[in-house]
Parts: sequence; structure tokens; C-alpha cells
Amino acid sequence: MPPPSRTAAPWPAAWRSRVDVAAETDWRRLLERDDVHLVDICTPGDRHAEIAVAALRAGKHVLCEKLLANSVAEAEAMVAAAETARARGRLATVGFHYRRTPAVALARRMIRNGRIGTLRHVRASYLQDWLVDPEAPLTWRLRREQAGSGALGDLGAHLVDLAQYLAGERLAGVSAVTGTFVRERPRPTGGRGTVTVDDAALFTGRFPSGVLVSFEAGRVAAGRKNALRIEFNGAHGSLAFDLEGLNELAFHDRTEPADAVGFRRILVTEPGHPYLEAWWPPGHGLGYEHAFVHQARDLVHAIAAGAEPAPFFADGLQVQRVLAAVEDSAAKDCTYTSVPCS
Amino acid sequence: MPPPSRTAAPWPAAWRSRVDVAAETDWRRLLERDDVHLVDICTPGDRHAEIAVAALRAGKHVLCEKLLANSVAEAEAMVAAAETARARGRLATVGFHYRRTPAVALARRMIRNGRIGTLRHVRASYLQDWLVDPEAPLTWRLRREQAGSGALGDLGAHLVDLAQYLAGERLAGVSAVTGTFVRERPRPTGGRGTVTVDDAALFTGRFPSGVLVSFEAGRVAAGRKNALRIEFNGAHGSLAFDLEGLNELAFHDRTEPADAVGFRRILVTEPGHPYLEAWWPPGHGLGYEHAFVHQARDLVHAIAAGAEPAPFFADGLQVQRVLAAVEDSAAKDCTYTSVPCS
Amino acid sequence: MPPPSRTAAPWPAAWRSRVDVAAETDWRRLLERDDVHLVDICTPGDRHAEIAVAALRAGKHVLCEKLLANSVAEAEAMVAAAETARARGRLATVGFHYRRTPAVALARRMIRNGRIGTLRHVRASYLQDWLVDPEAPLTWRLRREQAGSGALGDLGAHLVDLAQYLAGERLAGVSAVTGTFVRERPRPTGGRGTVTVDDAALFTGRFPSGVLVSFEAGRVAAGRKNALRIEFNGAHGSLAFDLEGLNELAFHDRTEPADAVGFRRILVTEPGHPYLEAWWPPGHGLGYEHAFVHQARDLVHAIAAGAEPAPFFADGLQVQRVLAAVEDSAAKDCTYTSVPCS
Amino acid sequence: MPPPSRTAAPWPAAWRSRVDVAAETDWRRLLERDDVHLVDICTPGDRHAEIAVAALRAGKHVLCEKLLANSVAEAEAMVAAAETARARGRLATVGFHYRRTPAVALARRMIRNGRIGTLRHVRASYLQDWLVDPEAPLTWRLRREQAGSGALGDLGAHLVDLAQYLAGERLAGVSAVTGTFVRERPRPTGGRGTVTVDDAALFTGRFPSGVLVSFEAGRVAAGRKNALRIEFNGAHGSLAFDLEGLNELAFHDRTEPADAVGFRRILVTEPGHPYLEAWWPPGHGLGYEHAFVHQARDLVHAIAAGAEPAPFFADGLQVQRVLAAVEDSAAKDCTYTSVPCS
Repeated sequence: MPPPSRTAAPWPAAWRSRVDVAAETDWRRLLERDDVHLVDICTPGDRHAEIAVAALRAGKHVLCEKLLANSVAEAEAMVAAAETARARGRLATVGFHYRRTPAVALARRMIRNGRIGTLRHVRASYLQDWLVDPEAPLTWRLRREQAGSGALGDLGAHLVDLAQYLAGERLAGVSAVTGTFVRERPRPTGGRGTVTVDDAALFTGRFPSGVLVSFEAGRVAAGRKNALRIEFNGAHGSLAFDLEGLNELAFHDRTEPADAVGFRRILVTEPGHPYLEAWWPPGHGLGYEHAFVHQARDLVHAIAAGAEPAPFFADGLQVQRVLAAVEDSAAKDCTYTSVPCS
Repeated sequence: MPPPSRTAAPWPAAWRSRVDVAAETDWRRLLERDDVHLVDICTPGDRHAEIAVAALRAGKHVLCEKLLANSVAEAEAMVAAAETARARGRLATVGFHYRRTPAVALARRMIRNGRIGTLRHVRASYLQDWLVDPEAPLTWRLRREQAGSGALGDLGAHLVDLAQYLAGERLAGVSAVTGTFVRERPRPTGGRGTVTVDDAALFTGRFPSGVLVSFEAGRVAAGRKNALRIEFNGAHGSLAFDLEGLNELAFHDRTEPADAVGFRRILVTEPGHPYLEAWWPPGHGLGYEHAFVHQARDLVHAIAAGAEPAPFFADGLQVQRVLAAVEDSAAKDCTYTSVPCS
Repeated sequence: MPPPSRTAAPWPAAWRSRVDVAAETDWRRLLERDDVHLVDICTPGDRHAEIAVAALRAGKHVLCEKLLANSVAEAEAMVAAAETARARGRLATVGFHYRRTPAVALARRMIRNGRIGTLRHVRASYLQDWLVDPEAPLTWRLRREQAGSGALGDLGAHLVDLAQYLAGERLAGVSAVTGTFVRERPRPTGGRGTVTVDDAALFTGRFPSGVLVSFEAGRVAAGRKNALRIEFNGAHGSLAFDLEGLNELAFHDRTEPADAVGFRRILVTEPGHPYLEAWWPPGHGLGYEHAFVHQARDLVHAIAAGAEPAPFFADGLQVQRVLAAVEDSAAKDCTYTSVPCS
Repeated sequence: MPPPSRTAAPWPAAWRSRVDVAAETDWRRLLERDDVHLVDICTPGDRHAEIAVAALRAGKHVLCEKLLANSVAEAEAMVAAAETARARGRLATVGFHYRRTPAVALARRMIRNGRIGTLRHVRASYLQDWLVDPEAPLTWRLRREQAGSGALGDLGAHLVDLAQYLAGERLAGVSAVTGTFVRERPRPTGGRGTVTVDDAALFTGRFPSGVLVSFEAGRVAAGRKNALRIEFNGAHGSLAFDLEGLNELAFHDRTEPADAVGFRRILVTEPGHPYLEAWWPPGHGLGYEHAFVHQARDLVHAIAAGAEPAPFFADGLQVQRVLAAVEDSAAKDCTYTSVPCS
């Protein structure tokens, strides 16, 4: 997504007097406070490893927004820190929040319950268009040293996590091409600078079971505002999700009578759907941020229960390895490149 | 919507100690408190008038959830109380919150800006299905003495408000039929009781300018979970909204080149759209409750500015008069029945 | 639909020599020919009765395009002629061809088979936009003496036939409003003339079983090109059809597991669907005209079998009576008006 | 598509006496007839080269259904024969009929007219599900010696032709994976046999201008009946087509005012659209076979004008080379493989 331009506004004093909150502008000060138990890391990716490792060492629980890190090495260090912390009862999780969008959670439940049978295909794409304009500014998301990669890490990481999480398998290897269509953009501070990340990344892969998986992440697909789409085709049916209609899940059930079969549009707004027991009456949709609410809820419950909440830092590391394999493959004429196991 | 079955849970003590909130279970006690400035009335309709009038007299600002009341007479008393209160700087508003769903607010702005030209047709329907099951219980929403009417007041009132608000005209008269398909239902307390309200209401009307308007409210339309749909056809284009895809607005612009014209799906999630400046990046949708957030925001701003916020109690009264005319027409073989002006 | 402007082109001689066809420009000459067994009447409605009665008397089978006639009296005469002819083995049918669009035929089969249970609602609308432009010419379809009525007969007649045919019931009465938004239009021959038919007709009705039915026919709904939509809500499910996506049928089955229920999009292009056994492989759609092909096929089979093919002239007469009741009701402030039984 | 199981029915004698047609069951006999000027080759691909070359040598015009052939070598021989024949005024074309589906033809016109600007992405997929069932029989389409390849040639060939034709560029190279999920199937003649072609093929490529292109062809995507989808993203807008809604084209125009922009659904049924001048009134859709009608019409016009009609055999050969490169790449761990120029 485009980086926020908002600057930190001071808390209104009148409001501060009525609610017990406080703010720090140096993250190290947060770690020194005894009344802070949980740290949510929302910085650009180049600071994740440093802050997360320090926070875990300081005895905090950690929610690190995705990407876990900007490199496999950083992610490995974070996993090590998380393992040490866990021995002391401190928990770490990475913020692949789309897992907690109700329609996605329902898709996982249905796949687990065998509703679509043995998987054959997964196809996943995440398309946006905020870089179509060649005069869109050169923000940190377009610089490799801060963002790690471009559409690949920003959008593709979500796809990799969702495809693996919902299918219950991990990619054995990938073949990839990437592209950058606009090479120079205006710096926010004046002048022009070089884009050092990808505008788009396309890759294919296989799960060990033989499932064929395709991915596309891109930020120059005119008119696609937030089009995270993922489809699963199985031997008994199919499921498809599109974030631009985030309260819906498409489901095809091959076992229906042949004359009445078709993709159905499940409105994932009913009492029996994941997370919906706490929300509105039937048919009343949720928004983008509710996935974050569910993430916070699940995390707090997990901490209370002393059980580490998925996705683990190890999941974040594995996604990092997939992204690294994608970049390797793209550098080697798309040749199939294995993803190392942990 | 189906009535909530939740009972009031006590506040957790640990949480209460950190946030400055309080609860009362008798509304009269609320009115006696000096630290309460604004009362939001969320009871069944039969208590609205009593509470609203008392609250305004007690010097409170009032947000009354729709329907304003269960009868025209009650609504008239409320309007009178609101007028007296306004002279003393106390403000009253009725909660037709769908006006503040961004796609609806955008539709109004586009109609006002002439984007679809002179209106010809408005068609509005609000369909749900929670009463399809003949064994659904006989709650207060199915009893005239508490709810005033059935689908007509619960759902149709929203349609009347939206059609009039977006078109900028008021209905001169209506012709109506209503129906109740399931006459007896199980009481929550045991035994069976009589349904005394409509399951569905269909009515047509005209705006003074000649626009033809059609309405349908129903709670037995299998598969329609929260299908508030409203369409406006004008001389230059059309607009259509469906609450089941609440972040979208369909727009047809007849002035486009003939070979490329068509209904477009506007994702109402962009910075230039109403209310969106305060929310997420492009393409990240909102949910049902955000309309209530916008309502609260606009109300607080209005109170701060001393300007009464629309919709006024007088708007609620006028909707009440339309509903009364609908019931009169339905009782008179659908004959066209005028809606009195205030 | 807009009237065709095509003039009769002469048959190419080279082609005529290879195929055994012939043409007449006077319909009376057709009736005198022994080698003509079946007459398809495609004139404006004001000539239907004369030609049909003469053709039946001349011993021809007759397919009369809808509307059957421009008045109830004409239609009654045609029914009488058809009854006489039937005694002599001559068959008559009226061209409500949409019955033979596969998705519509499938809807009927599913309703008959109880797939959606006891009906509660039927809502039907047929919207076009070719009269949005106030400079669209004053053709025969806009003159009462030739067309009988406007959108009501052109479009609404299809809705009435489909609603009754699919539901298996006939309207007991109706309540109606009609409107004409553009009163004068340019004559094709120069100057301006008065529009003497409706631009739009809205009506509600009931089936004897209590089903509530709503209709809207209009030709000024910007962007709606050929939007014949009809929806059936029953106690166990719903069905919805839209002619703008004519190879699809939406089906909601309430008996599905609650967490996976939703409107499904049946692609009516599969071998088990009505009429499809003679067409393309799965998923390969048909067009508008295939309903006419199916009509011809069914008619020829019926003639071969000596069995009169539905819809009968009596069905056309009954539709005519509904349309007359609509116009009566519209003239009487929308008061409910009974439809006479035959 | 699934292979037809129909056997040749004899012509009814009564009908034969009235229309000047004839039938041959040996294609060589057709070539000997002087009254045959045009041969349409509809056999499995392994016979195309033999028949086409012989027909062209016999002085016939030839329409060869796609794939042009089962191998590059065959296709080269056919191109050579076509070049020789053209010198003698005999014309050859290959049946990529989807070019003549009106929505596709409109997309090409809009791209040519700059409506979406410089292309960035093309993504094309053609998904069916008739091989989901592991007991679907082992027909000729599942044997390499007859069909050449599986989903790749059957479906992917259409994608390659459309992507190149609409973009106006040819693929420089590809990277591919293929898969076969069901290795053995029942023979129609009894017993089981081996599937020797792909069930699915995924490949990516680049156009010389830098456009990234992705392809997926598959016959085991449950619920996707005939889902040929192709999308073009450009600097000013996007276009998207889905054969399951074949009368529609989605168009996004970035130059629209920002608050009203969105994908629009163009109903490609209007007088100004390609091929529509000869068909029905606005909004009345066409079917699958109309593309073949348009192909026949364009071919007859081309023959009359003495101008060879696109797509040429050379286009068919180039598609063959792309398919060969796909298979080479799939055999080499997805490594990027160049497509030779002619």
C-alpha cells in the first residue's frame, strides 16, 4: 500500500486526562517501561530486526508487522530471539493479518474440512495501481535499502503466506520474473531518484503434493485498487476470494446436482462464520481494519493462555526465504529455484 | 434487522479502573446527571417519544435512532420538543445513519452536482430473510404495539429517507400493498402468538417534479441478507447502490462515447470520497458500523458549532407521515394517498 | 425494443436459384398459397387480429408475436378463431419467446420441482433506455393506435407472462401507476408529434395464493439496455434472472449448510439444461435469438404431434386483460383493479 | 473443449430435395470437386497439415481450425503451401475465431486507439473443468500423437493468439511449467490408458516493449466452465474480458474524475460495436457461435476482395513456435526460452 503521509499529532490534553494512555517517541524508552508488556512494530522493514530482538530481550511480547524483515539473515536472528524468549514465556507473532479476514478464515476452514477436496491449483494475485502515475513520488517503499523489495515484499508476501496457510503446504521452489516499468521518480525532497525495487513480480511454484501455484504482485495495474485475489481449485470444488469485496467468498461445490451447480457468493457476515459471533446482525459487512482487531483479540487471548499465536516468526522467516528464492530465480532467467527448508 | 438477544454484561472491574466510564440502567438517572450532555436513544420505538422529550427538556442533546417514533402524533410531539430545545441551544437529530455510508454520500453529491441530470425514476428495495423461517420467534419487532410496523418501519423507513434525501424532494403521495405471510410464531416465553405487523410492504409514489418512485421492504426474501438497494435514473445517467457491497457505487454516464459506455463500479474507498480522508489507503473498505462513526463525528462537530445536524426530527416526522400514508393506502385497496405537508 | 428501421431488401437472384424460397409483400397472397402451412405474424399490434383470424380461417397454423393484440376485444376474437381452427387441426400460439430462453426454462423447472418452496414474492422489471433521449423519434411504438400501449405492452407484457408462467398462477388484480416523461417527440417525417403511450408503468398485484408481485416496465432507465429481471423468493430459496446476462441463473438454496449458503451463479450452458442438448459444449453461451429458434423447434414438433403448443392464444388474451386492468387502475388513482377470469 | 461425441447423422431426404447441399465422407473426394471452392478443416490436429497442403494445392481456399498443426515443422510446411497458393489467388486462414467475438474486437480497437495507453501487463487464463473427474474418458484430446498437447494447445493457443493480437506485439520468450494431475484414464474402448498431454500449463513472457505477460491454461479448474479471461493494464486504463460473460467488456479509464472512476461494464451489444450493425437491437446478446459467423463473413468478403484474411497461416505458425518454446522451457526447469522469429 502507499506509505502514509501523516505526521504524529499530539494527544489532546483534555482527552489525555480521561484515558490512561501515554506516548514515547523513542522505541528504546518503551522497552524500559515496566507497564509495557506488548510491542507492536510498525516501522519500515529495515528496523524490524533490531527492535524485535531488543523487545524480546527486554521481556516484551512482540507483534511484528509483515514483512518480518528485509533479509533472510535478519529474519533468522529474529526467530532465534523468539525461541529464546519463548523459553521465558514471551511470545512473538508476525502480522499477516489477512489470515483473520473472516472470508479468508472461512476459506481455510472449508479447505481443512475437505469441502473442495484434493487441491490442484492455487492462483494468487495482489494488484494495486498507485504507481501507475510516473510522477508518484519516490518514497521509502521504492528504495531497496528500506523496503527490502517492491511489490514482491509489500504485496507478494501476503500472497505467499495466504497460499501456504490455506493450502497447508509450503512451496518447494519457485520460478520468477520481475519488472520495473518506471525507473526514476521525483524525490519528496526535490530532484529525481532511482527506483531500486520491482513494480511487479510474477512467479510460479509447486507444493510438494504437486499443486501448481501462481503468483502475481503488482502496483501498476490501472483500476485495481486493492485486488488481493486468491483461488483454490480442488477435486470437489473451488473457492475464490477478492479483497475488493472483502465480505464475500465464492464457492463452487461440484457435488451439487449438475443442473444447479455454480459459484455461489457466500456473504461472510453470518453468525456461524469466523469472528462474526462478536459483530453485527446477518448481512452487515465488516471493513479492512477488522482483521487487525481480530489479530489483536487472538493475540491477547494467546498471551493470556500462554500459547504462542500463529503466524510465528518462523512462518515469517519461511516467507522471507520464498521471497529470496523469487529474487534469485528472477536473476537467473526464471530458472526454478528451491526454497530451503528450515 | 433481527433484534439483538444480548443481555447487558457487567463492566470488567479491571477495565473500569482505567477508563472513565459509567453505566446507568434507568434512563431517568442519566437525565439527572450533569456530566451527560448527549443522549443516544436506542430502545424499541414505543419509548422514543417519552425519552426524547424528557431528555430535551432536561437540557440534553439527543440522537434518536430511527424510526423517530411509532406514530405521527408522537413524532409531532418530539418535533415540538426539539424546536423548544433548539431555542435553548440543545440539538436533536434522528439516526438515519445510511446517509453517512460513503457510497450513499457520494451518490448524493453526484446527484446534487448534476452528474445524472433530471431524475426520472427512483427504485428502492430493502430485503432481508430472517423471517423466512416460520419458526423464527415472535420478538418485539413483530408486535405493532412495540415496533409500530414491520418491514415497513424497520426497513422501509430507511428507503423513504434515502430516496427523499438523495433526490432532494419529498413524496407527494403513495399507493401501497402490504402482506404478512406467517401469521403465528412461537413466543420466546413459550406458546404461540400473533404477528401484528407486515412481513412486506410495496409502495409506489411520485415526487412533485414527476419522478416515479417505487419501494419494497421485506423480511422474507430468501438469500437477501441485508439487500438495501437504491437506484436513480436520470436524463444523463444512473446511480445504483447495494448495501451488500457497501463500498461500491454503480454509475452510468450517458455522456461517455457510445462505444465505451456502461455501468462502472466505483470503489468508494479513495481519498476524494466522502468521509474517506480519515480512513485507510485506497481500496481498503469500510464496514457497516462506520456509518455510525460518521454520524457521531458529524454530530459532535455540529454540537461544537452550535448548528443542528441533519437529519432533523422534522425529517423523521415527515418519514412517519409517509409510513402512515402507506398504511392508509394499504387499507384502502392501494388507492393513492396524499402525504400531508408539515 | 426500438422498432427496426430496415427496409425489405430484394433477395439476391443468385441465392434464390439455389434455395427454394419465395416472398410475398401482401399477406393475403400468403394465405392463398397451398404451400404455406404456418404463418408468423410480425407486424405492429394493430394488424394482429385481422391477419391471425384470416390465417386461421384459411387453414394455416399461426404463430403471432406478442402482444397478441392491441385490445381485449381483438384478443377475444382471436381466441375464438383459434378454438374454431383447433377443431380442424390448426394450431395457434403467441410468441412469448422468453419462456424458451434456457435460464428461464430452467427456473420454471426448478420452481415446479419445489426447489425454492412455497412462493412469497415475485418481482419483475424490464428496463431499457432508448427513450432517454428526448429527441428520439416518434415511431409507431409511441402511438397508442398502433402499439396499444408503451413500455407496458412492449416490455411489461413479457413480465406478466413470465411471472405467471413461472409461478403457475394468474394475477387476481393489480394496482398501477404510469408516466410519460417526454410528451412530444420529432416525427420521422418532420415536425413534432405527441407521445400517446406510457414511458413507464409500475404495478403491483397478488396471486390467489397470496404471493406479492411487483412489476416495472420502462424505457427511460439510463444504462439499462435490455434489463429484464425477474426474481422469485420462496420458503426454501430464491431464483433470479437478468436478460443482460442471459446464460446465467442465480439460485439461493436455504437448505444448504448455513456457513456456505449464498446465491450461486448457474451457467445455463450445460448438457442437462433445457434446450442445451442441441447446442455447444459446456460453458459456451447462447444469444438472444436462440429463444426464437427454440420456439420454432417446439412449434414444429407440436404441429407434427398435433398438440397445440403453449403459450396459447388464451394465454395472450389473459395477459391482455392484465394490461387493461393496469391501465384502468392507473386511471383510478392506482386503486386495486380485478383481472377478469376467462 | 471436450471432444464431441456426435456421429454423423444422414441428411433427411425430404430436406435434401429442397436445398442444394451434398456430403462426402472422404476429404480427398471434396478436393476433386469443382463446385467446392473453400475447405474448412475441423479434424483433430494431426491431420491438419496433410489436408491443408493438399487442399491448397488443389486450388481451394482453406480455413483451418486452430491449432494450425501439431508441430512447428507441420506448420512451416503449411505456411509454405499457403504462400505458393496465394501467388495463384488462393487464400488460407487459421480459425482463431475469438478475435471476432465483438467484445474482443472492441478491446482491440480500444487498445489501438490508445484508450488505455502504453501497456504494462497482459494476463490471460483459460480455465475449464471437464477433466476434474478422474473417470473422464481418454479421448483423442488426451493423447499427444493426435492432439499435439493438452490444455496448452487446446486452450493456451487461444490465449497466445489473443494476447499478441490485441497487444500488437509478439512474445520474445517464455518460462513455463506444466502439470498432469490424472495420469491414467479409462479408454472409451475399455481398459485404462495413459494421459500423454498436460492438464495445465502456466507460463510467463515478455513482449519486446517490456510488457509482462502471464498465461494459464487448465482443464481441471472446478466450476470454471469456459473461463477465457484476458486483462490488459496500461498507463491510462485497463480492459478485461471473460468469455463466461461474452457480451461484456470491462473498461477502466484513469482519465475520469478521480471520485467517479471505476471499472465499467460495457454491454457490447450496441450498434457502434464491431459486428453488431448486423444483429439485434441494443442490449440483445450474441452467443458463442456468432464468432464463427463473423469469421465466415469476413472470410467470404476477403475472398471476394482477393485479400488474404487474418489470422494468416504465418500467425498460426508463430503461435506454434510459442507453444514449442513453452514445452522446451517446461522441460528445462522453467528457464526462459526464446521464441524464434520467422
